[in-house]
Amino acid sequence: MKLRIEKERLAQELDQLGAISSEPPPVVTRIVFTEADLRARLFVKELCSEAGLNIREDAVGNTFARWIGSEPQLAAVGTGSHIDAIPNAGRFDGTVGVLGGLEAIRALQRSGFHPRRSIELLIFTSEEPTRFGLGCLGSRLLAGTMRTPLTDSDGLSLDQVRHNAGFTGELASVPLARDYYSAFIELHIEQGPLLEREAIDVGIVTAIAAPATLRIEIEGEGGHAGAVLMPGRRDAFLAAAEIALAVEAAANASGAIDTVATTGVCDIFPRAVNSIPSRARMEIDVRDIDGARRDATLKLIKDAAREAAARRGVTVKQELLNADLPGACAPAVIAALEQACIAHGATHRLMISRAYHDSLFMSQIVPTAMLFIPCRGGVSHRPDEYSSPEAIARGALILAEALSQLSS
Amino acid sequence: MKLRIEKERLAQELDQLGAISSEPPPVVTRIVFTEADLRARLFVKELCSEAGLNIREDAVGNTFARWIGSEPQLAAVGTGSHIDAIPNAGRFDGTVGVLGGLEAIRALQRSGFHPRRSIELLIFTSEEPTRFGLGCLGSRLLAGTMRTPLTDSDGLSLDQVRHNAGFTGELASVPLARDYYSAFIELHIEQGPLLEREAIDVGIVTAIAAPATLRIEIEGEGGHAGAVLMPGRRDAFLAAAEIALAVEAAANASGAIDTVATTGVCDIFPRAVNSIPSRARMEIDVRDIDGARRDATLKLIKDAAREAAARRGVTVKQELLNADLPGACAPAVIAALEQACIAHGATHRLMISRAYHDSLFMSQIVPTAMLFIPCRGGVSHRPDEYSSPEAIARGALILAEALSQLSS
Repeated sequence: MKLRIEKERLAQELDQLGAISSEPPPVVTRIVFTEADLRARLFVKELCSEAGLNIREDAVGNTFARWIGSEPQLAAVGTGSHIDAIPNAGRFDGTVGVLGGLEAIRALQRSGFHPRRSIELLIFTSEEPTRFGLGCLGSRLLAGTMRTPLTDSDGLSLDQVRHNAGFTGELASVPLARDYYSAFIELHIEQGPLLEREAIDVGIVTAIAAPATLRIEIEGEGGHAGAVLMPGRRDAFLAAAEIALAVEAAANASGAIDTVATTGVCDIFPRAVNSIPSRARMEIDVRDIDGARRDATLKLIKDAAREAAARRGVTVKQELLNADLPGACAPAVIAALEQACIAHGATHRLMISRAYHDSLFMSQIVPTAMLFIPCRGGVSHRPDEYSSPEAIARGALILAEALSQLSS
Repeated sequence: MKLRIEKERLAQELDQLGAISSEPPPVVTRIVFTEADLRARLFVKELCSEAGLNIREDAVGNTFARWIGSEPQLAAVGTGSHIDAIPNAGRFDGTVGVLGGLEAIRALQRSGFHPRRSIELLIFTSEEPTRFGLGCLGSRLLAGTMRTPLTDSDGLSLDQVRHNAGFTGELASVPLARDYYSAFIELHIEQGPLLEREAIDVGIVTAIAAPATLRIEIEGEGGHAGAVLMPGRRDAFLAAAEIALAVEAAANASGAIDTVATTGVCDIFPRAVNSIPSRARMEIDVRDIDGARRDATLKLIKDAAREAAARRGVTVKQELLNADLPGACAPAVIAALEQACIAHGATHRLMISRAYHDSLFMSQIVPTAMLFIPCRGGVSHRPDEYSSPEAIARGALILAEALSQLSS
């Protein structure tokens, strides 16, 4: 079997997908169920149809494109990632695993390979938390671990939004049976600097860091910025400013380089230059490869928020939106990826993923691993995020080799 | 001459105007040139037409409704205020001076009074800075002191926005001749607690505090909230948090109770929970009744911003959007208001306005004073902002009396 990745075609398809955005190039913004997201889904589904794959979509919009194996009753081998993108993002996060996964399947088809198990490309709905404040919507539902009813920032429920996008089935039908896949691999850019710095071709992920999201709503007292004197103020934004600095201090205090904490969202209400902020709403991301240490950092932050609120006479409501366990990858799938690297002469290392991935939830129900390729400067979630066509093609090649082994 | 204010009618008209809002009651949101603002203008113009006033609008939408005097060639006597409202505001800020001014004119008409000078109600465009980041648009243009071309937060120019709203003339035609008005009075809620606390009927304003607006744009480096470790970060929002706390500290450090400083706007970019803020944009309001002390506070803030930026490896761009001089009210107009208070048995005090008003700019071109009525708790710019029908009617009565004296 001679596997050949069509490098230029894949790079071109990534460019085409990157141009489908709510904002002008090079910015990629594709919030789930917006027009840009729906157009991007159509683009990918058309490519899958051209490759002869059978497409189905579930009630939350997860999309499955299957190359049927010679023994279709067996559990399939899955690969895939996401195509949604946060505001002001780039072209490679998620999309490399979708279009690279598709090219891996096409490379296997071109080589004359016929899989015993079906091979299925899976495009997850809303890996990014932008719209609903909670990431990995599709994979959480597939794993059956979705907790609360969700609403977006406009107050629309997940049901309203997905119905408007044309996905009208019952959410209860989304969870996958545990024997649906025999293995799952997600190809993804590293989103960190290690592979580039060490000049290693690919990373094989053994564990995915434990992320948590804390929402803090602060209620103070508004008023006219000219008329209310300083001593009488209960400014919600100043409490938020103190909390944001405490978030940073808590991560720095953990003593471990792997502890990170970020205030990525802080909305002020009423947001007028001549009005004292009466309310603020913060969303804080805390991650660690050690779950207990992550929870200790969270506790520091929550305590600091309570203290700031007491000091400033404002109230805080703290809500832990999610606090997921670290995900462990499956030795058998890791082994298949290692063998594929050896077969194709790719240097590799084992590593930990600090970023969130749908694989975190897939790992709860099926044997899962991730394959990382280098990205320039370790940068992602920015328009200048970049992986070379060579690095992407190499990732697709190793993925194809592993899929062939796992599906034989 | 027997002056009678129709208190219930005036209260009802204020309720009707308050219901014209982009948000459901009791919230009033009427950003300039939005549909709510345009509907509110129509409502007021219809009332003015019913009162037999002659209406004209200038190129920026300032609206003039004139009761023509017996010597129409003389400079007119003006009164008025604004009807735009910041997000999440209340029913009385600005509107009391517009509908109260109209009721004052109607009371004079009912009394059989005939003015020698014309009396004109003036509704200013965009007293609030919400849309263009600069307040008192209409009165700045009338006074001929508008500096820069303005754009709103969507990047639309003032010209585009006013043209879309139907105001297509040349902005150069807006400035008023210095002999256009012989006097101008703005009736307004106090937006502070003094009158209520001291149980005084009305305040006569002798000076308007000197406001300044500082915009700070911070540019750091974005990246994935999970993947970029703490030591390598250049988080724009954390710099903004430090600057916001420095704004508060600078006001507290002035040693004078009259120094106030507020960060009312702080937008984060890209505003995603899993993304390190790469940019932040703050709008800071600094006021004092002493211009030099206000400028010293501004300097403290600017220095602190530069220091925070240097410490965090981010860049700051600081732009002083406006730094107006304190406004002095005209002794002759103050005297007319004092006499009107005595004539109607109203207790009064002289006071300073800490809030911004169109009168600040009117005072640069015509003899101007302001008349304040109490508002509950000193609260404004909030849905629970409140002045009683009695307080409003008393303000309109004293205004009518003063207008009659000044126009005779």
